[in-house]
Amino acid sequence: MGGDGLKPPADVRLRGFAERVAVAAALQWIDARARRLAAEEVDIGAAAGRVLAAPLAAPADVPPAECAARDGFAVRAGDTLGGSDYDPAVLTLADAGDPLAPGSAAPLVAGAALPPGADAVLPFEQGQAKGRRVEIFAPVAAGAGIVRRAQQARAGAVLLDQGHVLQPKDIGLLIALGIERVRVVRRPRVALVVAAPKAAVGPARDANEPMLQRLIARDGGMVAALATGVAGQAAMAAGMAAPEADLILVAGRSGTGGDDVAPAALAERGRLAIHGIALRPGGSTGIGEIRGVPVILLPGEPLACLCAYEMFAGRLLRLCGGRDPDLPHRRCEGELQGKIVSTIGFVEVWQVQLSGRIAKPLAAPEEGGLAAALRANGFVIVPAALEGWAPGARVRVYLYGKEAEA
Amino acid sequence: MGGDGLKPPADVRLRGFAERVAVAAALQWIDARARRLAAEEVDIGAAAGRVLAAPLAAPADVPPAECAARDGFAVRAGDTLGGSDYDPAVLTLADAGDPLAPGSAAPLVAGAALPPGADAVLPFEQGQAKGRRVEIFAPVAAGAGIVRRAQQARAGAVLLDQGHVLQPKDIGLLIALGIERVRVVRRPRVALVVAAPKAAVGPARDANEPMLQRLIARDGGMVAALATGVAGQAAMAAGMAAPEADLILVAGRSGTGGDDVAPAALAERGRLAIHGIALRPGGSTGIGEIRGVPVILLPGEPLACLCAYEMFAGRLLRLCGGRDPDLPHRRCEGELQGKIVSTIGFVEVWQVQLSGRIAKPLAAPEEGGLAAALRANGFVIVPAALEGWAPGARVRVYLYGKEAEA
Repeated sequence: MGGDGLKPPADVRLRGFAERVAVAAALQWIDARARRLAAEEVDIGAAAGRVLAAPLAAPADVPPAECAARDGFAVRAGDTLGGSDYDPAVLTLADAGDPLAPGSAAPLVAGAALPPGADAVLPFEQGQAKGRRVEIFAPVAAGAGIVRRAQQARAGAVLLDQGHVLQPKDIGLLIALGIERVRVVRRPRVALVVAAPKAAVGPARDANEPMLQRLIARDGGMVAALATGVAGQAAMAAGMAAPEADLILVAGRSGTGGDDVAPAALAERGRLAIHGIALRPGGSTGIGEIRGVPVILLPGEPLACLCAYEMFAGRLLRLCGGRDPDLPHRRCEGELQGKIVSTIGFVEVWQVQLSGRIAKPLAAPEEGGLAAALRANGFVIVPAALEGWAPGARVRVYLYGKEAEA
Repeated sequence: MGGDGLKPPADVRLRGFAERVAVAAALQWIDARARRLAAEEVDIGAAAGRVLAAPLAAPADVPPAECAARDGFAVRAGDTLGGSDYDPAVLTLADAGDPLAPGSAAPLVAGAALPPGADAVLPFEQGQAKGRRVEIFAPVAAGAGIVRRAQQARAGAVLLDQGHVLQPKDIGLLIALGIERVRVVRRPRVALVVAAPKAAVGPARDANEPMLQRLIARDGGMVAALATGVAGQAAMAAGMAAPEADLILVAGRSGTGGDDVAPAALAERGRLAIHGIALRPGGSTGIGEIRGVPVILLPGEPLACLCAYEMFAGRLLRLCGGRDPDLPHRRCEGELQGKIVSTIGFVEVWQVQLSGRIAKPLAAPEEGGLAAALRANGFVIVPAALEGWAPGARVRVYLYGKEAEA
């Protein structure tokens, strides 16, 4: 409980936020509490997207023996000398399982161990088997078409570093290298509590749960407990009782309206450390903890919910999961079409439409602008120290739909 | 069946590829046969990552009525004139459900409809309710804190274009706008046939299925039929009988070894149009069709399998699903450390390790280099017309782990 010098926020319902915590201070709070989770061992076939909890070493020499680099005939290179289209060298077909006698050729597939005695692999297209007779149309040098034992890695050599996110490619390669199981960082378990939609403000259906489910999966988390349609303070507090969770996320009822019960419920159950952040949209975000488990209260308006998730919850998830904490979005530089006016002291997230290099700001954060935001294919973040940008300014655009995924 | 001028490839087992089809010709074959699938209607909550099959229009004005842009007091702006911290204007607390009488203020939450009579919303922090008395500390202009009816979109206005890939953000916004269901392109159904590992070449466990499952999901496809451990030609042919599939993918047994039965099985069931492509790795890829359904035979060696998937199968999947056919990997420019020597006429895919701007080529494609490839965080593609690049050349690097995902 604390030691962070923050005084408990007051109940802001029907009062508004008299003070707001800087985004940088909220991030500091989060970073101080995020702990990389423990390791678990999983089957390699289910490990794509997971984060290595320890360096991964080769279990044996790769390859374990001298083997063929391509489909072809295993030969003794000396036997192929002088072979040509017009005057082929003639060898006797042998079985790849036996040691290769002088004057013979054994067909084998890429990756297969070389039979003792062979010192080269001739591609099939440079030879021709007719019954037991193999004609060789080109000489091959000793060592050609062969991968030496341990040429790729010695037993015990580190193949992949701790913290590496396993790609589909890696899974295929690791299985081929004989790896069966890997130690990865446990996936953060999220308790997701979704408030009932406010009757006064639109559709009865909750907009945030499907969005958050997808974002949580993107950041490597799993929803381990889900409560939806939560309204009163008691139900909200009950939803936050999730002893197994590594992170509690609440969507909705975080604001300054009379029915915004989430902050009070968190204060009742644990500690509301921060409420009201100098962020637009997403300013009604609350942050705290229940018995050491971080809790983030996200606004119910979907664009504010998204913004608060991206700024705070996603970062916490990625840190717990051992991932790069930075926003996972692809970035590019854009040139601003039109100006952006932002309040000093506030971090503002503006939706933009990027066409080529031109970034066109859409609705201002406080205008809501849900339909306009649909047109956005990216966003820009105005730092707290700036009062915006003039037209033509070079800005960093974070692109939607191009995030790295877990 | 055909009309593409390609003659059926010969059985290449124990013979090798006498001729190889250019990568460009193979892509042309694929592009000519890829058809965008039909539309289906799905619940908006399950639509993240899906592709819009038609433009999406606003079902009603957004917002449907004049509403609050922020939490606060609905007021008549004229009533707030002259209010200050020292001499607040005093209004009477009213209920937001009723028309707003002169001299009163009704609390409402962002997004709620403005009560008739009100023409502005004052943030809670600029007022204070004490019982039925509301003190106003600052004047507010008419129209402030308000979103006008249809300000964001008129009923029928196009919100998102056909072909748009729905992002998590979009799902939240669309639900908030009252959208319940959307028409999206059907997900391509893949029949995945995985050959039994070759006993001679390493672990008994198949390396490709988990890799391909993940890649197919990335490209928006779903595995609708799965056969694993397939060995003989009859079993291979039976695995290809997948009447519901939009695409048949076979992994393994595509090469020139005696037990490479996939090409023969395809020729038996339908048509093997292309076998042997001027691509490294992945040269033993086969392409054809069974009753109009495209079939791609991928090599069994995992790096070759990956490369052939990325070059051909992924593109076909993305085209069928209405997506951008280009490789989904994030790209960046790198400066080559060391040279790359490539064969003219062959497209070669080289694994590289990118550090900052420096791209270091790892093992050459024909060397296999599974362990080296694990170190790769990207790849470069040497076009058929080039014989490689000199050290220091500027090359386009495709990055692993940064793909756009469905």
